[in-house]
Amino acid sequence: MYAQRREKIYNWMEEEGIALAIFEDHECSRDQSVRYLSGQPGDALLLLSSSRKALLIPWDINMAALYAAVDDIIPYNKFDLDPYLAACGAAAYFKVPYGGKIEIPPATPYPAFLKYVNQLSDYDVLCRTDGVKTIVDAARAVKDQHEIDIYRSCSEKTNEIIGLLEQNVADNTLKTETDVALFIEAECRKRSCDGTGFTTLAAGPSRSFGIHCFPSFTGAPFAAKGLSILDFGIVFQGYTSDVTLTFVRAPSKTQEKMLSLIEAAFNRAFSIVAEAFAPENPSPALPARDLALAVDVLFKKHSVFMPHGLGHGIGLEAHEAPYLRRTQTNTYVLERGNIFTIEPGLYDSRHGGCRLENDIFLGEQGAEILTRSKIVRL
Amino acid sequence: MYAQRREKIYNWMEEEGIALAIFEDHECSRDQSVRYLSGQPGDALLLLSSSRKALLIPWDINMAALYAAVDDIIPYNKFDLDPYLAACGAAAYFKVPYGGKIEIPPATPYPAFLKYVNQLSDYDVLCRTDGVKTIVDAARAVKDQHEIDIYRSCSEKTNEIIGLLEQNVADNTLKTETDVALFIEAECRKRSCDGTGFTTLAAGPSRSFGIHCFPSFTGAPFAAKGLSILDFGIVFQGYTSDVTLTFVRAPSKTQEKMLSLIEAAFNRAFSIVAEAFAPENPSPALPARDLALAVDVLFKKHSVFMPHGLGHGIGLEAHEAPYLRRTQTNTYVLERGNIFTIEPGLYDSRHGGCRLENDIFLGEQGAEILTRSKIVRL
Repeated sequence: MYAQRREKIYNWMEEEGIALAIFEDHECSRDQSVRYLSGQPGDALLLLSSSRKALLIPWDINMAALYAAVDDIIPYNKFDLDPYLAACGAAAYFKVPYGGKIEIPPATPYPAFLKYVNQLSDYDVLCRTDGVKTIVDAARAVKDQHEIDIYRSCSEKTNEIIGLLEQNVADNTLKTETDVALFIEAECRKRSCDGTGFTTLAAGPSRSFGIHCFPSFTGAPFAAKGLSILDFGIVFQGYTSDVTLTFVRAPSKTQEKMLSLIEAAFNRAFSIVAEAFAPENPSPALPARDLALAVDVLFKKHSVFMPHGLGHGIGLEAHEAPYLRRTQTNTYVLERGNIFTIEPGLYDSRHGGCRLENDIFLGEQGAEILTRSKIVRL
Repeated sequence: MYAQRREKIYNWMEEEGIALAIFEDHECSRDQSVRYLSGQPGDALLLLSSSRKALLIPWDINMAALYAAVDDIIPYNKFDLDPYLAACGAAAYFKVPYGGKIEIPPATPYPAFLKYVNQLSDYDVLCRTDGVKTIVDAARAVKDQHEIDIYRSCSEKTNEIIGLLEQNVADNTLKTETDVALFIEAECRKRSCDGTGFTTLAAGPSRSFGIHCFPSFTGAPFAAKGLSILDFGIVFQGYTSDVTLTFVRAPSKTQEKMLSLIEAAFNRAFSIVAEAFAPENPSPALPARDLALAVDVLFKKHSVFMPHGLGHGIGLEAHEAPYLRRTQTNTYVLERGNIFTIEPGLYDSRHGGCRLENDIFLGEQGAEILTRSKIVRL
């Protein structure tokens, strides 16, 4: 599977005349492309050569021996954990010719870029946003059958947990933000998940005004009078779900209005997607940005504003392409195989916040809502 | 307090003739300097001007209203969440003169650097590793009294939890990796902590061969026969501890040897620090690298190798300056006020791994071990 994924990249490299492409997953700069292309879960350099060979340079060789499906492995310590030495070493290992094109990650900081250029002075160093990383990201945004199967299971487990949460919050078994968050940690692992996809955000009414509450969860009451937000994802075989429920108790009129607006926004966005991706439509052409703008229009009519994007792709990362953003630079056109969230939210410093987030799959059979988050009225 | 911290930076900016310094905390590029200098816990641009004013451009204005201690706040949405537009806006807001020096974060990717240069073409854009971020990092590496007081409390809470862990693992109340990890999540919040400083790593004997086990914790037995590693930190008022215990049951001879070596390494490293920072020594001059090398020498005598650094500073981030690394580029000289970990570890694909990690404070009264991690023999 990893070899198959790499084939696409090798083909592109051949067309572009790239001799060596470097991917880096590092504490300061995570890139799940390394995992996507090699199976290694993290902390490694992955180097793809025009000779169609993959070399992994991992921090932890015991982990690599267990997880990595590559042609060769060299411990990072051989290069003093220095990415520049490792890049030079890899260029020599692959016998990259003088003047050969070596592409480094577009996340490379400018000072590090200068070091690469200096150390790789015999080669042509490329660092660009429209290079190999774009190709990998585009591939990752369109899930293959293996990934779709994982998402079927991941969504099912997510929905089981959503059901239990509704039940246990309603009967007061889960009382505090911490109760709710730790319940998810325990339940996802009972279902063979790796863990949560990001720190669970559990905000009772006193803290739901924050888009991403801080701290993420506390001993404060959850689902007390007003609006409570619960945003979580669980990771199954590397892939995360991402859902948000709002729990409501004795809402005020303003809160009711906010709730009905986010429900309307969710339905509006999904109906646009569903129409465009109806199975009988052979070539849907829906820009991701249009969805965000449609929701902006709806909210504007009611004089409210959503301070964040409408949604984002999910996969090996909790946030990846495609992004449903209103920004002009967003040119992504949605396609079958995309899995992304739709998550309208409204926040008020006095009345608190609410958000409704579900995961959407654009399949051959049309657009499908994979998860079962909702407004839970207590 | 935040204003006081910013004063130092303004003074440096004045000396260097910097008109505007930009700090960014973003999902893709975290920088706790924003919090250190403004109180805002995350997702914001912070701009310091030579006029000694601080402007915050946050994603979430409700959070900023609650946490940020700055001179002015402008919502990031006013700039379409675009850092280049925000930088231009801030330059105009502060009336930076034509040709004025604007320093952007050294983590700025090369393609983004080009955009900054293009958008800020009326100004002199600096992006360097030895600039304002270095000054802030150096300040953060030497804790002030406020921070030291927080670490007293944070260490105490950490030690309470260590005590409970020893007890509950010994009496078999905590059986699996998940049990142990979730116990820490719950106990730290009972003690008014924000949460854990990083994902707890709980590796039973079947998984302790990994430096950072993957997944971080599972339903597997913890503290069964052999070596189990537990690496965690708790965050109190923003600051994290970082400790690692190794639990041992019926060790083999090889495992015993590994354990005695990491204990010897910890003691060797601490004794070097303690001697250098004895209270009667007015000007200690101990390079951080020397500590790492001393432990390398000890391990080499016994033909073993530690695949990671000896330790690192802790603070608002779990990993920050000073770093106890063996790399030649590590030129940090330890000083009073530093708080860092010492964490020798050894890993074997067959025998499993062990690590002993405690937090060290270099105070006026000498070097002090703040935390009480140990090898726990069952």
